[in-house]
Amino acid sequence: MAIFPLIVLMTDYGLADPFSGILKGVISRIAPEVVMIDLTHEIPHGDILRGAINLWQARPYFPRGTIFLCVVDPGVGTTRRGILVNSGGYSFIGPDNGLFTFIYEIDFQIRELYNPAYFLPITSATFHGRDIFAPVAAYVARGIPSEELGPLITNPTRIPLPRLDCPTMGVLQGECLFADRFGNMLTSLGKFQDNRESLVFTPWISVRPPLAAANKYLVKNLYLHLQNGRRLSWVNTFAAIPEGDCAFLVGSSGLIEIVANQQSATNLLGLGAGETVILKSEGDQDGKILDPGRISS
Amino acid sequence: MAIFPLIVLMTDYGLADPFSGILKGVISRIAPEVVMIDLTHEIPHGDILRGAINLWQARPYFPRGTIFLCVVDPGVGTTRRGILVNSGGYSFIGPDNGLFTFIYEIDFQIRELYNPAYFLPITSATFHGRDIFAPVAAYVARGIPSEELGPLITNPTRIPLPRLDCPTMGVLQGECLFADRFGNMLTSLGKFQDNRESLVFTPWISVRPPLAAANKYLVKNLYLHLQNGRRLSWVNTFAAIPEGDCAFLVGSSGLIEIVANQQSATNLLGLGAGETVILKSEGDQDGKILDPGRISS
Amino acid sequence: MAIFPLIVLMTDYGLADPFSGILKGVISRIAPEVVMIDLTHEIPHGDILRGAINLWQARPYFPRGTIFLCVVDPGVGTTRRGILVNSGGYSFIGPDNGLFTFIYEIDFQIRELYNPAYFLPITSATFHGRDIFAPVAAYVARGIPSEELGPLITNPTRIPLPRLDCPTMGVLQGECLFADRFGNMLTSLGKFQDNRESLVFTPWISVRPPLAAANKYLVKNLYLHLQNGRRLSWVNTFAAIPEGDCAFLVGSSGLIEIVANQQSATNLLGLGAGETVILKSEGDQDGKILDPGRISS
Repeated sequence: MAIFPLIVLMTDYGLADPFSGILKGVISRIAPEVVMIDLTHEIPHGDILRGAINLWQARPYFPRGTIFLCVVDPGVGTTRRGILVNSGGYSFIGPDNGLFTFIYEIDFQIRELYNPAYFLPITSATFHGRDIFAPVAAYVARGIPSEELGPLITNPTRIPLPRLDCPTMGVLQGECLFADRFGNMLTSLGKFQDNRESLVFTPWISVRPPLAAANKYLVKNLYLHLQNGRRLSWVNTFAAIPEGDCAFLVGSSGLIEIVANQQSATNLLGLGAGETVILKSEGDQDGKILDPGRISS
Repeated sequence: MAIFPLIVLMTDYGLADPFSGILKGVISRIAPEVVMIDLTHEIPHGDILRGAINLWQARPYFPRGTIFLCVVDPGVGTTRRGILVNSGGYSFIGPDNGLFTFIYEIDFQIRELYNPAYFLPITSATFHGRDIFAPVAAYVARGIPSEELGPLITNPTRIPLPRLDCPTMGVLQGECLFADRFGNMLTSLGKFQDNRESLVFTPWISVRPPLAAANKYLVKNLYLHLQNGRRLSWVNTFAAIPEGDCAFLVGSSGLIEIVANQQSATNLLGLGAGETVILKSEGDQDGKILDPGRISS
Repeated sequence: MAIFPLIVLMTDYGLADPFSGILKGVISRIAPEVVMIDLTHEIPHGDILRGAINLWQARPYFPRGTIFLCVVDPGVGTTRRGILVNSGGYSFIGPDNGLFTFIYEIDFQIRELYNPAYFLPITSATFHGRDIFAPVAAYVARGIPSEELGPLITNPTRIPLPRLDCPTMGVLQGECLFADRFGNMLTSLGKFQDNRESLVFTPWISVRPPLAAANKYLVKNLYLHLQNGRRLSWVNTFAAIPEGDCAFLVGSSGLIEIVANQQSATNLLGLGAGETVILKSEGDQDGKILDPGRISS
C-alpha cells in the first residue's frame, strides 16, 4: 500500500516550459516517495473559473487524502495569500484567489501559508508554485501538522458564482461556461443525474429559493434554448446526433453540455462563454420540472 | 521489483481538460500501487486508425504484462462493446471499434466487459474511460481473473487495413497514413528492417499472395513515387537531406516515412492521408525487390 | 525511501506521438522501479539553445543524483556522438550537440556512449532516444559503472553563448532568448538575485573581463532599452503592470524577462529572439551598476 498521499497538480503553466517539471523536482527533493499525477497544466492563462470548475469535476475521483497542488495565479507576488484548504477529506494548496470556490464543504478549514520554514530558502516574486506551494505540498504529504503552516482564516476569496436560476417553475436559466477540447460547451445548468427517462436535479451551486431549499426535481421532456434563438433537443450519446447538428446532454460531471457528433458544437453554433442558456420542460402531458412536493426520495 | 503491471494510457482526451488525470484518479483509488505511463492523450479526436497504429508502434517497447488502457471512442454510450484483449503477453482495454486491429496475435483472447461489479457504481453515457475502462484496468492490474469480467467473444471489430500491395514483382504500393509532430508522413509500406545497404521486408499487415506467403524480400536501390509525380530518394538520416528537399527513409517502426531535414515534409509536399505511394526498385544491375526464392535465412 | 535515482525526460518529441511514452516503456523494461518525471517534451523542434537553457533552469530543483535524459537531436543517425555527462552531482544523457553547454561545472566528466551492450539490440538511424539514450539512462539508474559505457572525452560540443556584455560600466548588453508560454521574453541578462531594492548580479555565462573576474555587482534604478527604442521600467510582480503596458522583472531563474500583465509582452512589443537588450542604471544619486570594488561579501 502506498503510505503517502498522492499529490495532484493543476496549473496554467502549460507543458512547453519546464515549470511543471520543476514543481515535481521540488517535491521529489522533499518527499521522494510521493506519487504525483497531472490533472492538467493547460488551464488557460489566469482562468480561475475554469480551474475552479475542473477541480470540482475531478476531485471526487481521487482517493481521500489526496493533496491538490493548484496554481492559477495572476496575482503572484502581490499581497494575495497562499492557503491550505482541508475540505471533504482532501487538501488543496494554492493562491487564495477563488480557485477553491467550488470545493468548500461543510467541514472546511483554511490556513494561510505563513511559515517560511516550509518554503524554499529563497522565494521569487513570480514563481510561488515552485518556491512556496510545491514545497508546502511535499511537507503536507510527509505529514507535518497543518497548524505548523500558519494561522486559520475564515474569509477565503470566492469568485462570482456562474448564473443558475429558476425564474419560473419548469424553467432553469444559466450560462455557457467554457468549451472542452472536443468543442463541447459546458453550461452552469446542473448537476443532473441522468436516469435515462428523467433527470434528477441537485444544484451544484447555490440557487434562488425555493430551488435551493427543495434541492431535488425530476425533469423530462426538456429543450435547451440558446441566446440566439436556437432550440436544442436532448440526447443520451454523441452518436445519436446527425452530422452537422447539435444537441444537449448531461455531461459526465452532471452539467448540461451543448454537443455535436465528432464535431465542435461551440464552433458550429458560434457559442461564447457567458451566453444565456434556458432549460425548459415543454408539453403538458409528457412532463416538466416537477413540483418539489412530488419528489419521494 | 514492481509487483503490479504497468498501466499505459492512450486516449484522444487531450491534455487541456482534466479527463486523463481523472482516469488516473480512478485507477489510484482501486490500485494505488500501480504505476501509470502516458503513451499519448493527443490522438486526434476519434481517429481510430491513428490510435491503432500508435499502439502497434509502441507495444513492443513495454514490459510483458503491461495493460494498455485505450480510449478513442466516438461511439461511447451506444451499443458498441467494451473489451479486454489478451494478446502477445499484453492486455488491452477499451472500446471494440477497431482500435486493437493491429495487435491481435496468434494467441489472442477477447472478453466483453459485461460485469458491472468492476465498473464505477454510476456509469455515464459519455465518459466510459472513467466509469468502465479505467476501473477495469485497475482491477486487471490487481489480478482479478479475466473470466470475471465477461464472456469470451470471437468477432472483434476491425478497421479496414491500410493498402499494402504488390502489383508486380519489384513494386510495392501503399498509402500515406498520417504525419507525426515533425511533419514526417508515415506510409503503409513496411515493415522494413534497414541493414544500411539493403532492406528486409516483412509485411506488417496482410498483403496479397504470394507476398504474404513469401514474407521476406531483400530490396535496395529504391525510389518512392508520390501521387503527384514526385520521385523521392532513400536516405538513412534526416541530416543527409538538403534544406528544402524531401526524401524517404525507414522510420523507427519499420514503416517508410516521407521526411525532410528540420522541416515538415508533409507541408513541403502538400501530402494528405490516403494518397498513394509506390516503392520501386530501379536499375537492372544494382538491385530490385528480389524474388523470394533467393532469400536464404 | 526511493533507492533509485529519478530519470527526468526532456525532448522535442512533443506529446501528440507515442515517442515520449515509448522512452518510458524502454526504461521500464530495464529498470522497472525507476520513477520518471517529464521536464518537457515540447522543446521546439531542433531548438538546442532552448533545451540547453531549460535544462540549466531546471537542474537545481531536482535531487542530487538525478539522471536527465535529454533528446533534442537534429543530427540523429549521423556521426555526432552520444554522451553521458556527470556534472555537479547530476547525470545527463543525450546527443553531443551542445545541449549540455550550460551545465558543465568544474568537476564535469564526459563519456562517449560507445558500448552497444547497453543499447537496444537493434538501433534505428532515427530514434536514438529509444534505442540508445533511454536504455543507457535505465542502466545508469541501475548503477552500472560509467566506465562500462565508453571512453572519456574532453572536447564536448558547445553552442555559441548568448551575448552578455558590459560595454561600459553601468551598462549590460544582451539579447532576447525565447518567449515562454505566457509570452514573457527571457533575455540573456543575468543572473540577478532580486533583493527588492537592489539586484545582485552573477554572470550565468562568461562575460568580458573585468566583469567575469569581479563576478558580483549591486545594481538598482534600472531601465531596459529595447532595440526598437522602447524603454521599460522595472517591476517586481506582473500585477504591478498597467493593462496593455510592458515592463521587465527578474524572472524565476534570475534572468531579466520582458513581461506584461496577463498578456504576452512578446506580442505586444513584437519581440524576436536575438534582438539586443540593454540594461542601464540611470540617475546619479539613486544608484547605478556599482563598481565591483564596493562589494563587501
